[in-house]
Amino acid sequence: MTDITMIRAAAARLQGHARRTPLLSSPFLDEIAGRRVYVKPECLQHTGSFKYRGGRSAVSALDPDTRARGVIAFSSGNHAQGVALAAQQFDVPCVIIMPSDAPRLKIANTRALGAEVVLYDRAHEDRDAIGAALSGERGLTLIKPFDEPQVIAGQGTVGLEIAEDARALGIETADVLVCCGGGGLTSGIALALEAEAKGLRARPVEPEGFDDTARSLASGCIERNTRLSGSLCDAIITPQPGNLTFPIMARLCGPGLVVTEEEALRAMAHAFQRLKLVAEPGGAVALAAALFHGSEIEGEAVIATISGGNVDAATFRDALGLLD
Amino acid sequence: MTDITMIRAAAARLQGHARRTPLLSSPFLDEIAGRRVYVKPECLQHTGSFKYRGGRSAVSALDPDTRARGVIAFSSGNHAQGVALAAQQFDVPCVIIMPSDAPRLKIANTRALGAEVVLYDRAHEDRDAIGAALSGERGLTLIKPFDEPQVIAGQGTVGLEIAEDARALGIETADVLVCCGGGGLTSGIALALEAEAKGLRARPVEPEGFDDTARSLASGCIERNTRLSGSLCDAIITPQPGNLTFPIMARLCGPGLVVTEEEALRAMAHAFQRLKLVAEPGGAVALAAALFHGSEIEGEAVIATISGGNVDAATFRDALGLLD
Repeated sequence: MTDITMIRAAAARLQGHARRTPLLSSPFLDEIAGRRVYVKPECLQHTGSFKYRGGRSAVSALDPDTRARGVIAFSSGNHAQGVALAAQQFDVPCVIIMPSDAPRLKIANTRALGAEVVLYDRAHEDRDAIGAALSGERGLTLIKPFDEPQVIAGQGTVGLEIAEDARALGIETADVLVCCGGGGLTSGIALALEAEAKGLRARPVEPEGFDDTARSLASGCIERNTRLSGSLCDAIITPQPGNLTFPIMARLCGPGLVVTEEEALRAMAHAFQRLKLVAEPGGAVALAAALFHGSEIEGEAVIATISGGNVDAATFRDALGLLD
Repeated sequence: MTDITMIRAAAARLQGHARRTPLLSSPFLDEIAGRRVYVKPECLQHTGSFKYRGGRSAVSALDPDTRARGVIAFSSGNHAQGVALAAQQFDVPCVIIMPSDAPRLKIANTRALGAEVVLYDRAHEDRDAIGAALSGERGLTLIKPFDEPQVIAGQGTVGLEIAEDARALGIETADVLVCCGGGGLTSGIALALEAEAKGLRARPVEPEGFDDTARSLASGCIERNTRLSGSLCDAIITPQPGNLTFPIMARLCGPGLVVTEEEALRAMAHAFQRLKLVAEPGGAVALAAALFHGSEIEGEAVIATISGGNVDAATFRDALGLLD
């Protein structure tokens, strides 16, 4: 089970590899939010999302013989690129299983990072069976996207950095809003803050209609989403919180926040205009909550993660259309 | 005259105020350029451009009594916001003289940073006379945009950071491409590199039709542009290199590079897609040269500044239209 010792060890393994992202701010965002707003821009991380941290943490934690046989992941998104880059850096094989209808650019990007992309037909083939067969044959290690202790530890390094920077800024109490899918980033940050910044509280943020974590935290049991697709915030859509991540979030996190897709797009437009950052819709939900849900937030300041920036041009242009 | 001692002193005054921007990279950009590409993202600087460094350097270098009477600048762009924020931080008056047809958003942003914006009619009023009258009346100190030793020293801090990060990355020889208007940033970086990184060479980059610095470096005398407006790259358009900046550039810089507006827009699209950064057209010319003018560049790696990100949504959408 992930703990602060594992997170610190992951930070040591990521040193010199993951980018140390800063906390950014703008007086214009402070004015909208009615309090000081700080943004943790993980869109600037390698591969354009925080997922590289978890991927590198997990791959670097394997014993050398196991690692040399290679790794495998199921993902058409940010996790695929994070694991692929980590495997490439260790010069070990990497197989990524993706649906054959995944966006061409994502397939090309993952291949360009040296991964072997295996496509399957969502309607007629069993993803898990394909993965199990390949793993058995080649001795590949599965890197899960969030319910994996070393992945949570890697994402937790974001929390260590937030704690350090908040201390330097003199921030004593703040909600730390985290874009939340399966809860790897949220639970990792929550563990880091528990150890390093008692006055900071992690809170998951999700898009409307896909608020499984907020409902799970409210009920105390793991709740599922009714729909599993059809959100602009596709990067952070999962069926339910993880079996490992949920107990951590239930113990440490404040209530979940829920924003609309339009609020996420408006937050993207503000990140463009005021921070010069590119956020993807799912990566902008925490900033949307910071800007537009101030009455649900506590503390002198608010810290919002931007979890990723892998957005297509058409969606970004739609977001910019909301300015003025 | 600006020298390395002044740049180091400026760095000390900027410490804890200017953002320490990193060098960013992407394997996808390396592939386009045919060599390693590193980007210095000054679009992430306060006010969205490197101009805050020069503004803060100049305002902080004034003796306290002079500073208390206030400062004045002529600018409708990034220099205005840089000086305004610096003055606001010292809690001293700031007057910015802008043409009455400046974009509403730029006027609003400058006022929001606490400056008094004085508008003049470009056709019928004399900007310099208005400025001189106000300065005389109130004892304001003029902060020039580039031909001012403490401004050059402030911009030179970008060069100190590039030298430090290049050393850590093991880069021994590289062209450092700099978006160039009046030459404040280019000459400041050139002075810093002369002292701190002998194998790195600063080179100005300008948009086609406004290549006064490239032509001046080629002829050895200050040359003027024929046109003074009408470029998408408005942030870096000046009539000619400065009287202080040109001799520094002539002594230290490699030949100037010239890119088309379309290349600048395409570089903006790549910065969006691969670095998750928002660049303005003038701020993207150096990256455009790195990506599309490789045959004119020397060295194992190339370092390109992104000088600013203050671009309107419509122009940015045009740039994104060039992807795929």
